[in-house]
Amino acid sequence: MKFEVTILGSSSATPIYNRNPTSQALNINDRWYLIDCGEGTQQQMLRFDIKASRFDHIFISHLHGDHYLGLVGLLSSMHLNGRNKVLKIYCPEHLKEIIDLQLKYSETTLQYPIEYKFTNAVKAEVIVDNEDVIIETIPLDHRIACTGFLFRQKKRLRKLIKEKLEEIGIPIEYYTSIKKGKDYTAPDGKVYNNSLLTIDSDQPKTYSYCSDTLYNEMYFDQISNTTLLYHEATFLHNMLDRAKETHHTTALQAAEIAVKTNSQKLLIGHFSARYKKLDELLEEAQSVFPETELAIEGKTFVI
Amino acid sequence: MKFEVTILGSSSATPIYNRNPTSQALNINDRWYLIDCGEGTQQQMLRFDIKASRFDHIFISHLHGDHYLGLVGLLSSMHLNGRNKVLKIYCPEHLKEIIDLQLKYSETTLQYPIEYKFTNAVKAEVIVDNEDVIIETIPLDHRIACTGFLFRQKKRLRKLIKEKLEEIGIPIEYYTSIKKGKDYTAPDGKVYNNSLLTIDSDQPKTYSYCSDTLYNEMYFDQISNTTLLYHEATFLHNMLDRAKETHHTTALQAAEIAVKTNSQKLLIGHFSARYKKLDELLEEAQSVFPETELAIEGKTFVI
Repeated sequence: MKFEVTILGSSSATPIYNRNPTSQALNINDRWYLIDCGEGTQQQMLRFDIKASRFDHIFISHLHGDHYLGLVGLLSSMHLNGRNKVLKIYCPEHLKEIIDLQLKYSETTLQYPIEYKFTNAVKAEVIVDNEDVIIETIPLDHRIACTGFLFRQKKRLRKLIKEKLEEIGIPIEYYTSIKKGKDYTAPDGKVYNNSLLTIDSDQPKTYSYCSDTLYNEMYFDQISNTTLLYHEATFLHNMLDRAKETHHTTALQAAEIAVKTNSQKLLIGHFSARYKKLDELLEEAQSVFPETELAIEGKTFVI
Repeated sequence: MKFEVTILGSSSATPIYNRNPTSQALNINDRWYLIDCGEGTQQQMLRFDIKASRFDHIFISHLHGDHYLGLVGLLSSMHLNGRNKVLKIYCPEHLKEIIDLQLKYSETTLQYPIEYKFTNAVKAEVIVDNEDVIIETIPLDHRIACTGFLFRQKKRLRKLIKEKLEEIGIPIEYYTSIKKGKDYTAPDGKVYNNSLLTIDSDQPKTYSYCSDTLYNEMYFDQISNTTLLYHEATFLHNMLDRAKETHHTTALQAAEIAVKTNSQKLLIGHFSARYKKLDELLEEAQSVFPETELAIEGKTFVI
């Protein structure tokens, strides 16, 4: 089961050369989910050979430009490239007003429907529930209404012990019910217990996306035991005052959050333009939580 | 006197990898003017080492996204980088509403003032008149209200024939009035005619920026005798029907316009994403007007 994230942008508010504002492409079983869409996201997709047409779900955390200014251009390109299937956007409600105003003045009527689901920055909510994944909002503590997103892989069916089923001679049409945990009753009335025929599937994995936020325990319970935690780490800890003032997190704090929430791995990003090289941010986080990596643009992380 | 334009973006509505939507940086005597500001303009400035803080004047031709979607990000970066001097924006009036809405929802109060001058897409107007240049709008024929911009270098003062002035022994304090065309009267009463002391300055040059537009003679008079004509050339002429339908120009038509308006040089741009290589567009235009060049990103053209 595929569950991986490709980093399209890792910069905070002001871009630096070759580092772009926030965007991530999540691939869950070949369904693609776009998380945030900073300016230049389309160019980054072209650069890393990710087709814009693949995305049916776009998640926007909040209405600071570095998280959404690439969206109207992307919507327009999808339109010009002949999209007609529905696009779902999960976002703060005022984003619709911003998009509609720009479509109005460019006299554009999109050739495909957009379905909006407005996020609630106060209360966590399930916003997607399909066969692959449950997606929840994570209310964060930023200067304006902001939510992260939590992707919980669905528990998969049990795995068949093929040799055993063949040995017993179980017809293929029973396989699905056995995967779902049913026992098998042979024509002679003999009952084979499911535990003899299957093993448990892998434990479902989770991806927590937390950008932008002040260090605040309010969301720690919700993201506990995350397989991969993406957390913003805008500053080094020697700029803690600036982090507090701007409602951001330091690399050290991001690592502490990974420890406190019992995350398996940590990915840090949303780097301030002041850091031309990112080594110090990585070292600071790894000093507390060794399983930390940098959200380098173009890199894909298997969850 | 410096008068040159650097291409930041040359793509039309959908970007292709490494080709960005329209933007140009005009340098007139080290005063910088930004013409259009497609998505990614900030990254292009970083790439070509052009400082965003230099620009005090921004011109937006129309409200299709490929001509302005980089603007809000640029305004925000100017704010975050401490700008406090006034920024003048020349644009269709609804752009202010689009900018204000986005600033409102990001809860941003810019630390510098913006002065808007709204363009009139029906009637040509002088929108800037300073010591270096007169700038006029050029009403174009596009699907929505759209103006180009015409930059007319000011006639400079006459050039002194230094050796002659020294030979006569004219004190330096008379030089400015002589540059302005005055004769010189020596202490002994002898009058030196200005034509003996100076030569005429170079003829003022002009830059005409025409994007986006249908081929339409209505603006040809205004841009006649342009030193450098930038004209959009979205399509090859074998796509004339598509050009008409979308209110764009073909490379062949752009060249015909250069001929009809007696332009000295032609620069073509706003290339459709369908053209991965641009040779055919260039060849088509050069077959009619040999003095044509492609608006290649990063290239600077002296006017």
